Amino acid sequence: MQQTMLAAVWDGGSAPVLTRRPVPVVHEPGDAIVQVTRSTICTSDLHILHGAVPRAVPGIVLGHEFAGRVVAVGPGVTRLRPGDRVAANCESFCGDCWFCRRGYVNNCEQGGWLLGCRIDGCQAEYVRVPFADQCLYPLPHGVSEESALFVGDILVSGYWGALQCDIRPGDTVAVVGGGPVGLCAAQCARFLGAGRVVLLEPDPARRTLALAQQLADHVLDPCREDAPAFVQRLTGGRGADSVIEAAGAPDTFELAWRVARPNAVVSVVAMYESDQILPLPRMYGKNLIFKTGGVDANCCPRLVELIAAGKLRTDFLITHRGPLEAILDGYRTFAARQDGCLKWVVTGPCKTEESVS
Amino acid sequence: MQQTMLAAVWDGGSAPVLTRRPVPVVHEPGDAIVQVTRSTICTSDLHILHGAVPRAVPGIVLGHEFAGRVVAVGPGVTRLRPGDRVAANCESFCGDCWFCRRGYVNNCEQGGWLLGCRIDGCQAEYVRVPFADQCLYPLPHGVSEESALFVGDILVSGYWGALQCDIRPGDTVAVVGGGPVGLCAAQCARFLGAGRVVLLEPDPARRTLALAQQLADHVLDPCREDAPAFVQRLTGGRGADSVIEAAGAPDTFELAWRVARPNAVVSVVAMYESDQILPLPRMYGKNLIFKTGGVDANCCPRLVELIAAGKLRTDFLITHRGPLEAILDGYRTFAARQDGCLKWVVTGPCKTEESVS
Amino acid sequence: MQQTMLAAVWDGGSAPVLTRRPVPVVHEPGDAIVQVTRSTICTSDLHILHGAVPRAVPGIVLGHEFAGRVVAVGPGVTRLRPGDRVAANCESFCGDCWFCRRGYVNNCEQGGWLLGCRIDGCQAEYVRVPFADQCLYPLPHGVSEESALFVGDILVSGYWGALQCDIRPGDTVAVVGGGPVGLCAAQCARFLGAGRVVLLEPDPARRTLALAQQLADHVLDPCREDAPAFVQRLTGGRGADSVIEAAGAPDTFELAWRVARPNAVVSVVAMYESDQILPLPRMYGKNLIFKTGGVDANCCPRLVELIAAGKLRTDFLITHRGPLEAILDGYRTFAARQDGCLKWVVTGPCKTEESVS
Amino acid sequence: MQQTMLAAVWDGGSAPVLTRRPVPVVHEPGDAIVQVTRSTICTSDLHILHGAVPRAVPGIVLGHEFAGRVVAVGPGVTRLRPGDRVAANCESFCGDCWFCRRGYVNNCEQGGWLLGCRIDGCQAEYVRVPFADQCLYPLPHGVSEESALFVGDILVSGYWGALQCDIRPGDTVAVVGGGPVGLCAAQCARFLGAGRVVLLEPDPARRTLALAQQLADHVLDPCREDAPAFVQRLTGGRGADSVIEAAGAPDTFELAWRVARPNAVVSVVAMYESDQILPLPRMYGKNLIFKTGGVDANCCPRLVELIAAGKLRTDFLITHRGPLEAILDGYRTFAARQDGCLKWVVTGPCKTEESVS
Repeated sequence: MQQTMLAAVWDGGSAPVLTRRPVPVVHEPGDAIVQVTRSTICTSDLHILHGAVPRAVPGIVLGHEFAGRVVAVGPGVTRLRPGDRVAANCESFCGDCWFCRRGYVNNCEQGGWLLGCRIDGCQAEYVRVPFADQCLYPLPHGVSEESALFVGDILVSGYWGALQCDIRPGDTVAVVGGGPVGLCAAQCARFLGAGRVVLLEPDPARRTLALAQQLADHVLDPCREDAPAFVQRLTGGRGADSVIEAAGAPDTFELAWRVARPNAVVSVVAMYESDQILPLPRMYGKNLIFKTGGVDANCCPRLVELIAAGKLRTDFLITHRGPLEAILDGYRTFAARQDGCLKWVVTGPCKTEESVS
Repeated sequence: MQQTMLAAVWDGGSAPVLTRRPVPVVHEPGDAIVQVTRSTICTSDLHILHGAVPRAVPGIVLGHEFAGRVVAVGPGVTRLRPGDRVAANCESFCGDCWFCRRGYVNNCEQGGWLLGCRIDGCQAEYVRVPFADQCLYPLPHGVSEESALFVGDILVSGYWGALQCDIRPGDTVAVVGGGPVGLCAAQCARFLGAGRVVLLEPDPARRTLALAQQLADHVLDPCREDAPAFVQRLTGGRGADSVIEAAGAPDTFELAWRVARPNAVVSVVAMYESDQILPLPRMYGKNLIFKTGGVDANCCPRLVELIAAGKLRTDFLITHRGPLEAILDGYRTFAARQDGCLKWVVTGPCKTEESVS
Repeated sequence: MQQTMLAAVWDGGSAPVLTRRPVPVVHEPGDAIVQVTRSTICTSDLHILHGAVPRAVPGIVLGHEFAGRVVAVGPGVTRLRPGDRVAANCESFCGDCWFCRRGYVNNCEQGGWLLGCRIDGCQAEYVRVPFADQCLYPLPHGVSEESALFVGDILVSGYWGALQCDIRPGDTVAVVGGGPVGLCAAQCARFLGAGRVVLLEPDPARRTLALAQQLADHVLDPCREDAPAFVQRLTGGRGADSVIEAAGAPDTFELAWRVARPNAVVSVVAMYESDQILPLPRMYGKNLIFKTGGVDANCCPRLVELIAAGKLRTDFLITHRGPLEAILDGYRTFAARQDGCLKWVVTGPCKTEESVS
Repeated sequence: MQQTMLAAVWDGGSAPVLTRRPVPVVHEPGDAIVQVTRSTICTSDLHILHGAVPRAVPGIVLGHEFAGRVVAVGPGVTRLRPGDRVAANCESFCGDCWFCRRGYVNNCEQGGWLLGCRIDGCQAEYVRVPFADQCLYPLPHGVSEESALFVGDILVSGYWGALQCDIRPGDTVAVVGGGPVGLCAAQCARFLGAGRVVLLEPDPARRTLALAQQLADHVLDPCREDAPAFVQRLTGGRGADSVIEAAGAPDTFELAWRVARPNAVVSVVAMYESDQILPLPRMYGKNLIFKTGGVDANCCPRLVELIAAGKLRTDFLITHRGPLEAILDGYRTFAARQDGCLKWVVTGPCKTEESVS
């Protein structure tokens, strides 16, 4: 008799449905089956519920951010064994195509956002992970699944956003947006040698968090203060050496390039709902470099090492926790940013042993 | 009695005026006075005549592209002596400020486009050049003034456009626009290791020139052919590894990023008359890098060496020549692109000896 | 009945033996069997015959430089099919270990110099190639097997030697040694943007070849001329911007760093028979960068493209040709550098159809 | 009447002499006169006393590490004014020659180690500093002269040693030698993103200091423990991603490359008294990169900013302090490493006001 498990499913409607589904099994030689011990809800999940992700397949189990334990692997998997505790990449990539070989895993010829979008995701007791050798990362002793939960999405996005700034030691880096990715970007910019990180974020609670957690050196509300003038005062009148745009709000793209000094890198991590204006005549001579797009998550194993070494952390993202049975509440809390919700973490089903049946 | 010379002056009207002006003398310690033996007309000169350069000062001598011989230097000049034959940068920069020290000479705190815009330029018999140690480049034996005429504007713009593509050996580089800068960019891309250069240019004469002069490997008319499809066929379906946009026409910015493969550099050398659209939602995941702005002409001495070594050349740009006395005809021919005019070269006054009086 | 083929075998003695051996078959899933249509003799083969390669296994078929046609592939091979014409890497690497993933294929955890050293090589009618997806490169239409013969050893060594010089456009590059690798290094340095390539080589025939084939701009005999002084005269008294040491003779390491300017890269491609002296007290302040070691041949597919595009070529290396039956003569001619022998190319067995029996 | 001051002079003997000398005045337009408020003794000073620096001029005032206040500037100085508090570079450079323009200030055509070697140095009440705009760095509010004392020699050497390692985030960096430069190198390696810094140092007090001050993650005594094996255990059997050799002892060069993994950078900051062996045959295939030479101190202003930002510090170097009058004791203590002496800081003359007479 086929085993079943609890799962949060998108049936095409505007809220997930908590239901039972068959426990997944290995399909492809490169698959692994992972018991999910930590997962979480992402803004992208909300996009699916809002009908804004055309390629999402109704009926799938939601979720793409998780950590857990390997319970089975396909015959092509060489780097993982059942029992391994693992972090996971939110996107899937083969590791072998023209793009993957150059580190552009985001443009993998076979991959992309599959989990919780085109195939069953991780907001369940178990998940099937394709290209497991590439997309799952064994956790060393001392790194908990919870501390590695954000490696493959939030943290790697912030890290990539900071990395592509080509920060020189002591640079002033501005981060636009203090959501989960922006906070991670600020932290990573400091780790990568920034002398000063300035966070532009309208929500006072998030600004307070950024200072209290030592993620940023300066914070300000760009809706009330003149951010370009503030940054110029810090930098002898020049502007930020690089800028990470992690907000994606209607006017944050413009804010990003306005706080930048001439010849700065503007690293665009955010997703936008509308086209942006690039006022090249007005910008002529400012010689800005815009790096656009989605995270190339080719450095997750390195991030696991940096967490193990105590150089990076993500605990400050967790404002709420609950079991898989409570995930519908989680969705509501997260969507409403209720109680300052940054991330709502799913701690697994209430009673793991009995839940699979 | 003050000596005078022939000069093409902008009196605020829509055409230059040929008149006599005092021969310039050293004002600042870093000045040099150069006898102009070759100069030329630039599209930017036309912009001034059209009233499109608000900071241009009526009454100035026009012109910023030239080569010649040093006739006098100020006391602060250490690298030049009277008699030196020199190429010249079209913009002025101090070489010592925060930006200049980092190679961002385009953002020099004291410089910018001065000659023929805010101070008297080179379409005359003599020109005063500020920051002469930085902006004039002695010519080695065997390099004529004519062959070095384009170093400081057209050639360095094309070179910079190609250089910032970070070309890897064998890359496919697309160049949008086959005007003088585009042709130089194509040539430089080949020199910098491109495996294939594809020039997109609607004018058949310019396409023919590009092939005949071995500046490009492939040419096509983007108004009649599907350029992205053409480039994809050349590159296994991926698109250009980098793109140099040297046209600045209404739809060439879009053309540039559409021919690029994911993770390509789009090097924007062109000047635009209107804002451009950056369709980030549609581009999401393509991870393009846009390098915008105006040439950082910090490598002109190196270009003089490359001309001397026979690695780069600019003779193919010269379609027309005439003496300074005929420069008004030159303006008309150049503006109308008459007879396939790419560049109209001023060969100096008819009778140099007598003209200064 | 097992088929046999002609093969040049090392039986532990100082000369190869021409004998018959079984035609190889697929052992591992990643293997390919290649019919050898071109191969050649390398100085490393002579080292084996001289007993100077302790890890070489007596009884193996010699040879590691070849091109040919795929006749069979193992079930794990995904990029090759029987009938494909291919160039080959002289070393084997998995493409997937920690080192391979970073491009350090030379330090592959499973690979290294296997063919013709630890397993049967290519001086035969057929050869079994492990890790075929990584180490064999399909040839595009228009690229002959002969023109791709040197891709995986001589050419890639010269290319790597030049690449790690980090040549800036117009640089002066000195190449020490005008043997096959040195000539390829000189050619690649020009392709990678050198303004001037200076070849230091005592053999006048090789110097003449380098000039005639436009591989170098200047040549000189370092045994008779003062090479550092010559290079300083070319470079305003500074010395070479980078140096490629491709000779490995007793005093060429010292020659290499002596012709270098301060802060130059010295790229050491040569193999040495004895330790070298690094006179750090005398060099203090010269700030040289020494890049040592063996070729990281991770760019062979790119080299095939560059040959197809006409940017690089290797025909000048071929001074002698003969069928497999004559390879013992080939060894003698190559070892003695008789008749100016650079490379002796094996054109396959006299009568391919009948030779396998 | 000419004013005089207290100064430690080398009269050609093996110990400095404390005597009175004329207070220096501006000689060249680019000079500044600095009142020395902090200076210190360097191993290089001992080399001069030992007669091991042939170019040192007997009769000079010793010392090249200092901070202080500008009291006068020449007419060519544009960035400094009397009253400015400044850090100083230990070497002099013009900022304008071919080498300086490329950041190779160590090879300045006019500069080098002048102060306290070829011209009067800083172990005095005042010092004349050539090329003052390049070699003196104004201190921002909040940065004391003592905290900036080491910027231009010890700290910049360690920083440069770490910088040229091209550290990737999370790398394992080994530092050979826990003297002042090695400790700064360790600190900078962490700041530049190292995941783990391993310090190899035989002196237990220095090892203890490195751990207590959080300059290193691991320490070990390379004379008693197998350092390559230790580093391999930390790195999955590979070895250090980069190595900084800051000891210069007889066998530390070999130790440095032995702890390195294949393809690592070995950054050689140390000065050696004898030639080193580069065993290229044994190293073949390990593909090490050796960066040799003396600090290119082109980043001191950035270091001042990093001290101001609290990212780097040097207080842990100061084990002893005393007035200028006690400097002969200081020399003895420093030379003997008495009481764990790392750096003996000269706090100025006892009574500054009266001492100049």
